[in-house]
Amino acid sequence: MTPESQPNVLRLVREGHEERVLAALRSHGALSRSELGRRTNLSRATLSSIVRHLLSQGAIVEMAADPGPDRGRGRPVTLLTLNPAGGLVVGMDLGHRRIQVAVANVAHEIVASGSKDCAERTPWTRRVEIALELVDSVTAQSSVSLTALKGVGVGIVGPVSETGSHRHPQRASRIDLIRKRLVDRFGVPVHVDNNTRLAALAEAIWGAGAGVPNVLYLHLSYGVGGGLVVNGHLFSGADGGAGELGHVSVDPEGPRCHCGGRGCLERYVSIATLLERCHTRQFDQVLAQLAAGDRQVGEFFDEAGWRIGRVLAAACNVVNPEAIVVGGELAAAGDQLLRPVRAAIKEFAHRQVRRRLLIHTATLGQEAAPRGGIALVLRRSALLAGYPPTADADDETSQPTETDRAIHGRRLR
Amino acid sequence: MTPESQPNVLRLVREGHEERVLAALRSHGALSRSELGRRTNLSRATLSSIVRHLLSQGAIVEMAADPGPDRGRGRPVTLLTLNPAGGLVVGMDLGHRRIQVAVANVAHEIVASGSKDCAERTPWTRRVEIALELVDSVTAQSSVSLTALKGVGVGIVGPVSETGSHRHPQRASRIDLIRKRLVDRFGVPVHVDNNTRLAALAEAIWGAGAGVPNVLYLHLSYGVGGGLVVNGHLFSGADGGAGELGHVSVDPEGPRCHCGGRGCLERYVSIATLLERCHTRQFDQVLAQLAAGDRQVGEFFDEAGWRIGRVLAAACNVVNPEAIVVGGELAAAGDQLLRPVRAAIKEFAHRQVRRRLLIHTATLGQEAAPRGGIALVLRRSALLAGYPPTADADDETSQPTETDRAIHGRRLR
Repeated sequence: MTPESQPNVLRLVREGHEERVLAALRSHGALSRSELGRRTNLSRATLSSIVRHLLSQGAIVEMAADPGPDRGRGRPVTLLTLNPAGGLVVGMDLGHRRIQVAVANVAHEIVASGSKDCAERTPWTRRVEIALELVDSVTAQSSVSLTALKGVGVGIVGPVSETGSHRHPQRASRIDLIRKRLVDRFGVPVHVDNNTRLAALAEAIWGAGAGVPNVLYLHLSYGVGGGLVVNGHLFSGADGGAGELGHVSVDPEGPRCHCGGRGCLERYVSIATLLERCHTRQFDQVLAQLAAGDRQVGEFFDEAGWRIGRVLAAACNVVNPEAIVVGGELAAAGDQLLRPVRAAIKEFAHRQVRRRLLIHTATLGQEAAPRGGIALVLRRSALLAGYPPTADADDETSQPTETDRAIHGRRLR
Repeated sequence: MTPESQPNVLRLVREGHEERVLAALRSHGALSRSELGRRTNLSRATLSSIVRHLLSQGAIVEMAADPGPDRGRGRPVTLLTLNPAGGLVVGMDLGHRRIQVAVANVAHEIVASGSKDCAERTPWTRRVEIALELVDSVTAQSSVSLTALKGVGVGIVGPVSETGSHRHPQRASRIDLIRKRLVDRFGVPVHVDNNTRLAALAEAIWGAGAGVPNVLYLHLSYGVGGGLVVNGHLFSGADGGAGELGHVSVDPEGPRCHCGGRGCLERYVSIATLLERCHTRQFDQVLAQLAAGDRQVGEFFDEAGWRIGRVLAAACNVVNPEAIVVGGELAAAGDQLLRPVRAAIKEFAHRQVRRRLLIHTATLGQEAAPRGGIALVLRRSALLAGYPPTADADDETSQPTETDRAIHGRRLR
């Protein structure tokens, strides 16, 4: 890491400190500042800065301590505690085949979650309604009230880009529709991004990529996608296309792809290809065959892993991440997939970029995308450090743009 | 661009505003605030913020205006002007075959520059001395005094990484040596980075990639390298390896490379390969042959461009930059190189990442690396916006680390 990227390392450190403070309050209830300092092992100056930030964000509150019988007439001790009205955040994943929701509290714990499979052809409007029904049912089951809701983060299929979406009027209007419906319903800010990218963000913050600033995420499912987290932030690139690992070409003579490319990785390593190769429609069955040592299935994973490794090697030469996280259903193959991946990275990546490279399977499973939606809201509301930007308050460029206003929810009626 | 990256867009806008203010003062001398507002066409609030920042950085100063015969007893008008003692910045490139230096004034103009070829085997200590002699001679020729020197930015060959360099004691000590010599000599902060990456930064700020946040730079010379600018900042990745485009494999069956990989792009498209293929040692002659329509040379560029395009297509799927800039001696082939590059990108990149992609040849030539050194110093000293970070002043994590202290120069004796 060069000093150029140090501010972001500082932010990650700070974020870790915040999590420590929140975790201590979560497990111990109300604590005085000095107890909190002992339990988190943070210096007084650091703790004071973190506490001030969390107080200003309404994540924690001060309360007077019971003085107790022995206490003299000194300054009354105040305790710090999680703010019971500190706000919940809803994350949603409007996936191809599955709708998923999760609700997190101010300490970043999931307090309610649920999912529902849906047909691939389910219209978008219906998907949103399914997600809303899910939110209703899981919050009712867990006796969670959404009165203190702070925001909603939504993952959708396909690229999401503020500037690029102007070029896709249909897509832009679909995103607006989803946003409007949710703002109407909840009256809080609603953030939308691609669901695979949200999974990348969640894995980088709370999952297999936690603790390092730069994470490359590969998602192996019916489609093959990915996401890139740079200095702890989701990086979308110019048009929301960063992390499109499934469309890196692995065969210059290969077949044309719907993306406009040729010989794309997705064509060789998706679940669809695997099932076709094994003449079955049962993905679980294929995984069982793999575990049982089936040669044909084993060969598929060897070849797929090698091709994936070649693509990841190229990607590592471009961005040199600390960690690669492999998620999606195919990642369940574990080492039988990662072994050839590692071998190909060793064969094709520059020594410099693979020396300390970590390669993990994802740990958040299906919850990754809705949790990424939660992370997006926390980042935007500065409940996770690193936001907002530093621009001077009286600088016209720091005024919210039309785009900002469109994104940050208001009651639209 | 998603809102996630907007702070950096704001920064770029702000930087553009600063350049406008500095340019106006450079061309018109001293100006009042209202004249400056008219000439830069900036709003009063923006101008006031920019001026305050430039004043605080010592880039500009206030001076009392001559009241003139007609002026009454109102508040005296102050003029703004470039600070004559506002500080110069030296950039150096200690390249393989050439040492290059440039000196910029507070308005980011190059006021002196020069270069000297050197043998590839010239020891590092000698390279530094050559650079120092060059600084002496070009400043003497241009009557530039270095009394107000603010910092030195140095480009060197090979990866530079704070964390990674601990694993290369020899390399780390070479960097320390260079830094120590320059700090001893000038007594100002000295920043060191890879010279190709510095060229990438300069092209992204002042060259062919100016005006967009994300730039991928490819350098085609005797070696093939690159650099990645993300949200206006040089991005090094985990170990200083980001942007290593020359070592992306283009042939899985290709020969082993010194980098540890196989079939690396560099092997197929470097000047060395071109000269070998054309049985000559004269690079200029090859370019002349290309211009004259020589078929063999033309074929080399067609094939090289196609391979380069495949690598850039993969890289675009990973980072989705707004612009690609191609520099280095081979870029002099212009469209005869870029035509096949564009064709391959069209064939292999996702529609989404190539729709608005700009592909340019570099415009700063040999001066790119030393100018990148200058940019590095300006960024660190906050003379270009976007620095320093936002960490609270009383947060222990914002204290300078050992690494910071080692980098920011002090007189070491």
